[in-house]
Amino acid sequence: MDYIYADNAATTAVSETALNAMLPFFRGNYGNPSSLHSVGQRANEALIAARETVAKVLNADAKEIIFTSGGSEADNQAIVTAADIGAKKGKKHIVSTAFEHHAVLHTLRKLEKQGYEVTLLDVHENGIVTPEEVAAAIREDTCLVTVMFANNEIGTVQPIKEIGAVCREKKVLFHTDAVQAAGHLHIDVKDMNVDMLSISGHKFHGPKGVGALYARRGILLSSIIEGGAQERGKRAGTENLPAIVGMAAALEEAAAHLDENAAKERRVRDQLIEGLSEIEHCVLNGDRERRLPGNVNFCFEGIEGESILLLLDDKGIAASSGSACTSGSLEPSHVLLAIGRPHEIAHGSLRLSIDETATEEQAAYIIEAVKDTVALLRSMSPVWRDLKSGKQQFITK
Amino acid sequence: MDYIYADNAATTAVSETALNAMLPFFRGNYGNPSSLHSVGQRANEALIAARETVAKVLNADAKEIIFTSGGSEADNQAIVTAADIGAKKGKKHIVSTAFEHHAVLHTLRKLEKQGYEVTLLDVHENGIVTPEEVAAAIREDTCLVTVMFANNEIGTVQPIKEIGAVCREKKVLFHTDAVQAAGHLHIDVKDMNVDMLSISGHKFHGPKGVGALYARRGILLSSIIEGGAQERGKRAGTENLPAIVGMAAALEEAAAHLDENAAKERRVRDQLIEGLSEIEHCVLNGDRERRLPGNVNFCFEGIEGESILLLLDDKGIAASSGSACTSGSLEPSHVLLAIGRPHEIAHGSLRLSIDETATEEQAAYIIEAVKDTVALLRSMSPVWRDLKSGKQQFITK
Repeated sequence: MDYIYADNAATTAVSETALNAMLPFFRGNYGNPSSLHSVGQRANEALIAARETVAKVLNADAKEIIFTSGGSEADNQAIVTAADIGAKKGKKHIVSTAFEHHAVLHTLRKLEKQGYEVTLLDVHENGIVTPEEVAAAIREDTCLVTVMFANNEIGTVQPIKEIGAVCREKKVLFHTDAVQAAGHLHIDVKDMNVDMLSISGHKFHGPKGVGALYARRGILLSSIIEGGAQERGKRAGTENLPAIVGMAAALEEAAAHLDENAAKERRVRDQLIEGLSEIEHCVLNGDRERRLPGNVNFCFEGIEGESILLLLDDKGIAASSGSACTSGSLEPSHVLLAIGRPHEIAHGSLRLSIDETATEEQAAYIIEAVKDTVALLRSMSPVWRDLKSGKQQFITK
Repeated sequence: MDYIYADNAATTAVSETALNAMLPFFRGNYGNPSSLHSVGQRANEALIAARETVAKVLNADAKEIIFTSGGSEADNQAIVTAADIGAKKGKKHIVSTAFEHHAVLHTLRKLEKQGYEVTLLDVHENGIVTPEEVAAAIREDTCLVTVMFANNEIGTVQPIKEIGAVCREKKVLFHTDAVQAAGHLHIDVKDMNVDMLSISGHKFHGPKGVGALYARRGILLSSIIEGGAQERGKRAGTENLPAIVGMAAALEEAAAHLDENAAKERRVRDQLIEGLSEIEHCVLNGDRERRLPGNVNFCFEGIEGESILLLLDDKGIAASSGSACTSGSLEPSHVLLAIGRPHEIAHGSLRLSIDETATEEQAAYIIEAVKDTVALLRSMSPVWRDLKSGKQQFITK
């Protein structure tokens, strides 16, 4: 069996289509889109076309898209924008959830230090926020609701359209971090009542180092990088044209095959979930149905995340314990804690994030490898011995 | 004559070396450096190596380099860092110059709105700041001196080492925007007494969308993009590994050939300056000697910048009127105003920025093309007619 990369939520390989789209812009069509000469103008035409492509996939207008260096920057900018708009009206309260990506949570923490108040909603055991709870949390002084489209660890998909409707009714800006959703789920910013939305190229077979922020017409973006007048004066710095073109090509490609890819992934994902559920004392994290087509996330009692990853890697499988952005941290995942997993088992998590190339044979191989690895680690685990002997109580069934 | 690209200060083509270094990281070695599995660890090794390469060229320690999305972001982060450090000590005064890049000036403007005070030093007719004036401007409450290494429009090179020595003596942080200098001039952060320094990949035949910030050990960087723990927690977002690797390769290549390339460029630059000086009523902008080896910048009386660029483009020459970041603006260049050029002639500027591939034949062609174009435009210019008839006074000799 060839090495299996099952960590597509961390990053993806650039697709051939995307790379081929990018290549002409490194050495041939390398102009600065702001330059007036023909080299610059050719680059500018490509920039315009890429913006139109991204806008079309999201059902936005090209003027509503600005390019950033990635999803984190887009999240930061969206939140700072809403905070600035709110401050002008004396509104300094923000509603979000406990399991957002750190690009959102840490930006909110910074705003708290500046006097904003943040309400983090419960995400329940199934990892899903309800529109009713969003509605209940909105106050007179709320300037922003920011709820992620799909969670990066457990893959649960939020009722974005319904949350958007609540926000629209209450006249509160609504941002969604769609970094994990873009290219994998249908996104229609108009139909879904979204005011701002962040995406990242490298999560859907586009390149790293590029993202986009959709901001509905009429929203005056705050800059977080000051300088030249690029991106309508809202994001300074020479445009990263090869990456922008590559992201647009990857997004267009993903959108064209979205249903077909999702169906393929869902089949393999369900096979993995069923197979891994056979392991005793484990639990699936996140709602069984309302999750990304490529996401599988389990906690296994009596083992620790890092060792399982290293052993699986030896068996030729790239997996993760959660977000790559927090790996190396000794803290258990804030996402797993948010859905109520106790510390003891939150440490023993495994995320498999597959793409449309994953096969049933690969899934079968992964299931056997995980079963063997969990058994091996448990055979060496003092915690597992205590659990089996009844000295400690099992948390899972 | 093949098309001549003489706008390398706006952006450069990625070198073959840099592109070849990047290519394996798009589809083969595409891992996320934060991932624990072998795909991620291979990526992480490349990240470590790239950081060491960049550090070595600048005579810094690898731990003193963080990667950013470009020069603008690095400038923003350096200035915000010094401002935050200063605020903690009640020091809210910053010294800079009137002809910095907008990534610096606009960040300073933002800080002014937050209660900081900014002194912009005169850059004189030759486009050079003196260390004595820097020393005189520093006050008890000064938290930062930020002076660019080489100007992006007129190419003048500042006495960085001497300014650094003044700052060190007065115990004030010193940042330099070295975006135009890196890869073109020798940089040694230790010898030059620099505390923070910004570079941008695409100005020295590396890729767009990547830069680096050197920050001397002991300087606690402020984040401007919050989120994951990448770059020691000081710059969130999955590392743009292909671009980082490409920038490191390009910088290493540029450093290895720096003297030889500079000598080639200087020869062609001097030929251009001598040839264009023959045009009546023109003036060279910036010091004749203390300028980037590839920079030529003239003002011609009686013409407007944009028309000369379009006509030169028709003749197969890519040139610029100044910074690409401000093109399309009706305002004359703030750099040319800063060196005392009156509005009337600041509009008629031409920047040629060559690289090491420029030849004497190309220079001869450019000189003739510019002469013809200036003559043509003047023949149609009512301003030129008024100047020649004595209705208006010439500013230049």
